[in-house]
Amino acid sequence: MSLPADDNAVFDLMQKELYAPVLGDILDKLGFRQQTMAARLRPIYAEAVVVGRAMTMLGIEVHKVPEHPYCLCIESLDRLQSGEVPVITAGNAQSAAFWGELLATATRARGGRGAIVDAYTRDVNHLIRMQFPCFATGIRPTDSLGRIDVVDYGVPVQCGDVLVNPGDIIFADYDGVVVLPTAVWREVVEQALDKMRGETMVREELRSGISLKEVFTKYGIL
Amino acid sequence: MSLPADDNAVFDLMQKELYAPVLGDILDKLGFRQQTMAARLRPIYAEAVVVGRAMTMLGIEVHKVPEHPYCLCIESLDRLQSGEVPVITAGNAQSAAFWGELLATATRARGGRGAIVDAYTRDVNHLIRMQFPCFATGIRPTDSLGRIDVVDYGVPVQCGDVLVNPGDIIFADYDGVVVLPTAVWREVVEQALDKMRGETMVREELRSGISLKEVFTKYGIL
Amino acid sequence: MSLPADDNAVFDLMQKELYAPVLGDILDKLGFRQQTMAARLRPIYAEAVVVGRAMTMLGIEVHKVPEHPYCLCIESLDRLQSGEVPVITAGNAQSAAFWGELLATATRARGGRGAIVDAYTRDVNHLIRMQFPCFATGIRPTDSLGRIDVVDYGVPVQCGDVLVNPGDIIFADYDGVVVLPTAVWREVVEQALDKMRGETMVREELRSGISLKEVFTKYGIL
Amino acid sequence: MSLPADDNAVFDLMQKELYAPVLGDILDKLGFRQQTMAARLRPIYAEAVVVGRAMTMLGIEVHKVPEHPYCLCIESLDRLQSGEVPVITAGNAQSAAFWGELLATATRARGGRGAIVDAYTRDVNHLIRMQFPCFATGIRPTDSLGRIDVVDYGVPVQCGDVLVNPGDIIFADYDGVVVLPTAVWREVVEQALDKMRGETMVREELRSGISLKEVFTKYGIL
Amino acid sequence: MSLPADDNAVFDLMQKELYAPVLGDILDKLGFRQQTMAARLRPIYAEAVVVGRAMTMLGIEVHKVPEHPYCLCIESLDRLQSGEVPVITAGNAQSAAFWGELLATATRARGGRGAIVDAYTRDVNHLIRMQFPCFATGIRPTDSLGRIDVVDYGVPVQCGDVLVNPGDIIFADYDGVVVLPTAVWREVVEQALDKMRGETMVREELRSGISLKEVFTKYGIL
Amino acid sequence: MSLPADDNAVFDLMQKELYAPVLGDILDKLGFRQQTMAARLRPIYAEAVVVGRAMTMLGIEVHKVPEHPYCLCIESLDRLQSGEVPVITAGNAQSAAFWGELLATATRARGGRGAIVDAYTRDVNHLIRMQFPCFATGIRPTDSLGRIDVVDYGVPVQCGDVLVNPGDIIFADYDGVVVLPTAVWREVVEQALDKMRGETMVREELRSGISLKEVFTKYGIL
Repeated sequence: MSLPADDNAVFDLMQKELYAPVLGDILDKLGFRQQTMAARLRPIYAEAVVVGRAMTMLGIEVHKVPEHPYCLCIESLDRLQSGEVPVITAGNAQSAAFWGELLATATRARGGRGAIVDAYTRDVNHLIRMQFPCFATGIRPTDSLGRIDVVDYGVPVQCGDVLVNPGDIIFADYDGVVVLPTAVWREVVEQALDKMRGETMVREELRSGISLKEVFTKYGIL
Repeated sequence: MSLPADDNAVFDLMQKELYAPVLGDILDKLGFRQQTMAARLRPIYAEAVVVGRAMTMLGIEVHKVPEHPYCLCIESLDRLQSGEVPVITAGNAQSAAFWGELLATATRARGGRGAIVDAYTRDVNHLIRMQFPCFATGIRPTDSLGRIDVVDYGVPVQCGDVLVNPGDIIFADYDGVVVLPTAVWREVVEQALDKMRGETMVREELRSGISLKEVFTKYGIL
Repeated sequence: MSLPADDNAVFDLMQKELYAPVLGDILDKLGFRQQTMAARLRPIYAEAVVVGRAMTMLGIEVHKVPEHPYCLCIESLDRLQSGEVPVITAGNAQSAAFWGELLATATRARGGRGAIVDAYTRDVNHLIRMQFPCFATGIRPTDSLGRIDVVDYGVPVQCGDVLVNPGDIIFADYDGVVVLPTAVWREVVEQALDKMRGETMVREELRSGISLKEVFTKYGIL
Repeated sequence: MSLPADDNAVFDLMQKELYAPVLGDILDKLGFRQQTMAARLRPIYAEAVVVGRAMTMLGIEVHKVPEHPYCLCIESLDRLQSGEVPVITAGNAQSAAFWGELLATATRARGGRGAIVDAYTRDVNHLIRMQFPCFATGIRPTDSLGRIDVVDYGVPVQCGDVLVNPGDIIFADYDGVVVLPTAVWREVVEQALDKMRGETMVREELRSGISLKEVFTKYGIL
Repeated sequence: MSLPADDNAVFDLMQKELYAPVLGDILDKLGFRQQTMAARLRPIYAEAVVVGRAMTMLGIEVHKVPEHPYCLCIESLDRLQSGEVPVITAGNAQSAAFWGELLATATRARGGRGAIVDAYTRDVNHLIRMQFPCFATGIRPTDSLGRIDVVDYGVPVQCGDVLVNPGDIIFADYDGVVVLPTAVWREVVEQALDKMRGETMVREELRSGISLKEVFTKYGIL
Repeated sequence: MSLPADDNAVFDLMQKELYAPVLGDILDKLGFRQQTMAARLRPIYAEAVVVGRAMTMLGIEVHKVPEHPYCLCIESLDRLQSGEVPVITAGNAQSAAFWGELLATATRARGGRGAIVDAYTRDVNHLIRMQFPCFATGIRPTDSLGRIDVVDYGVPVQCGDVLVNPGDIIFADYDGVVVLPTAVWREVVEQALDKMRGETMVREELRSGISLKEVFTKYGIL
């Protein structure tokens, strides 16, 4: 199967057809075995799906209000490109929310496709109302001002225990977040679309009561 | 804007108009920066909102059934006043649920407006059916008898990592739990109602695609 | 009250009439005080209920793809009996999902009544669509192949911090998971059905505003 | 071998001849498999050994200075009997030290034989200089006043994850803390003294290079 | 008692006469109740004592080797003044050691009096040989290059859960680390020297077997 | 510098000349950045040093005494070769000690050079008396029988968060544990011996008070 040339079109196709586990399985097969984020990142609503290119931000817990508040956070989001997804990490900071409605509104206005936040978010009811797909590790009503600062962006970050490089492809659904390295992402998508057909057959066979042993011998997947 | 004199009327207004982050922001601005509870406290249903005065209870993990079971728990709830909210802590006890349907029923019968439990609850389907708003750290079906005792009430407690004094005002919604000290709570509410208007304008501007930098320069909020 | 002789009929009755806390209370009363699983095991959808006999599996985190993939996992599920429930533990392994759609499909085809997984699951949207009741500690899209192996089954396991023997009766609902030892399970069910009537009266009394003290003195339950 | 009738004489004998693992092994053999405390309890100096009868204290984290400071702590230690050992738990309180030099001095003056503290201690250099054997989970210089209160004593407590009843026999050395239930403690000590002879032979054989398999077949211990 | 005017002379006096708990007690008495660091900070050798002025550094976990390695770390230490103590935090980074022999050598060459590291150190045998007093949360042999960067210094930091401002006075011994705010530190030292005399009397009385109750009534300390 | 051909002779040289951080630094330089174990593994006495080839064992927490106790543990140690080091992992099992005196005695009798245990040990005083170098995560007096079983050996294991393949070279000293992959270990040792000379010069320069900036510019190491 040949994919559309336009990345955003592929993202739309992925959003419609794929789910996280099958992408993880193909990455495993190709030898990329550290590409699924830790279970602590959860979607803020059940149907949230994020597909897009990572724009990374690196945050840190601080203890004073900075001279130029939100400085690099503002700068990085003001440069966000269509099809990108903020991928944010904050070194386990639990004192505040690192994401919220206004950042989401700005992200969407620039064509951003969601956010992956290895930290807390807030304004969750607003985010749900906007249907802004956001994955985070928890919810706290506390502002980040004087608690979390962005110290860099567009650099490799560890998010959900996965090393994310700027430009990596993110796929996130109810099963979790998968990171597709730039060099292989189209191959992964192609093989994933193929694998899903095999799984349908396996499912049918199992439903009919055939043993797992026979099914696994025949199809080699489980 | 002038608030009603009656506390319960203000609580109703807060419940209708406000949400947790804006209260946290105003408290920050006034220098009260430790007033939002840890993210481990979550509502048992999405729409749960609690507004009221804290009636604190201090629990402890024990390992025998006491001579007078539930003694101080019963005493404190039997004295609960209308407009109050049990705010309960149990020193990280994970062996049992510290809250449940019967306590909720008694709380409601006395005009209690919900419960904030830095511990587990049970009977959650019943609580949801009653639409009793409860924030807790988890769910376990285990009775507290012989596992958690109340050793004091009406004293300062650390709940969700916030120091709560009896009589503090609690506001809890899907974004989390905020504690308003008695001395400033009406001022906080007034300023929060004001701030919400500003946020609406910021939201509109951001939606139109204006840069975060301009918006922040103009409105000073994010 | 006399229970049906057929176990599956009793399971159906339990599923319709009982809930987890009342079973925990009766077990407490009979001196079995370690029978409710830790709060980290949560249902993947709110209405999930599991009642059945435990078929235990013991997993371990590994770091190579085994010669015979999924070997004991396949063997144990291919021998699953109607009315059984896989009860799975994996020593805190967080690197992969230990459960998923295909295992659930095979389980259901053999009459299995759900799964209790002290580990992660995946394919959650599929599981929900199947209405396959599953309790797990989290969700991650990662395959278990080369990450978690089954090393034994049909042996005592520690699941959710409860010692589960093969054949123990599992009851799990939104409040959590309870384990009924084989020797007493029918007695527990009978007494639980009785206790539920008492609770209805207590609830009515409390709703009418009577004090907790009077109610507890009169009924001895809370 | 017959033990002295006087308990304190047996304690002295234990202190001279036994070590923790052999006591744990005998308890295992007799079916008491939950009698060794968690590894977080460590001696404050390498040679510290505690043997004596448990006098239990139950503490709790608090957030105000009480009306009668240290009240039950003072009362319980003033009643301490010769041969007893304070066994203290504080529900994971990490805000202060629950033990220190003055309490140790009072304990020693009454014939107390050390302290087992599932919490922090302070004044450690003084305690070492006194050669007061103390097992604790950490060291912090902070006073307990207004941070940890004793709420009960002489009751069953969970210390180091072991249920300790008042009067149980404590044995603690560099390998950790073992709790001997009153009903069997003399039998355990007798069998432990026997087992130590067997271990000496096993050790000799292994040193000579004989296989573990032969040794285990021959002696049945490892 | 009147202290020397020269700070370094007072530091020497403190090092010779005082210990951490008595400083913590005086701070408590004056209402500064959050000034003792968490128990995870431990000295690398038993006799290590640090007294001096805090020079704060703020680190962060990173995932690429920076363009200018060790840049702000070098800059801050090259500006270190005699009598100062690096107080370092790294947001729970556990991937590398943030301190080591070469930094200690440079610190000592400038008159630095030790280091307080809320992170890991390495080169511990060298540090001990130098008798460089260092408090850290653990030991790992891993270089910080490409793992931890300094992003700021001379700013307020949270170290061991205490807010440390540049210039605060640090006192650390085997019992832990205490932070004396600039405004009160000389008063705290004076009162601490006084209190130590009272404790000697209490100790004597307790040793003689007098009850804790009498002692506490008479001296008001414990 | 050319190393001896005999591995054991190189191990002796390493033990005499090298320390863990310099090996970690060379591995970093060669691109092997995940080779130092987590800080939870600590030596049981300060001078303990282990150098040798990894013989891996994979353990698991269990809840019944197995039919053939200690079976694979015995088998693996009876096959141990001179120069090897048991490298043991147990999936975070904290219920028992996985290492002890008798296993150490057997290991030494076969020419084993120590043990790396990502789990607890016991019999620590005996191990110290034997001067058997052992790295472990904690100490507990509890036997592994019926608590931890070996399920495999001679397979890749995750120990201290590092993937260890059988035959990898282990170097462990007070700074922690480093794993040298078979393919590069001799190159790493050669470069490490070289680097140590450079560090001596840097140390001298820093001691003389020269700035870190100059030193780093000149030598490129820190």
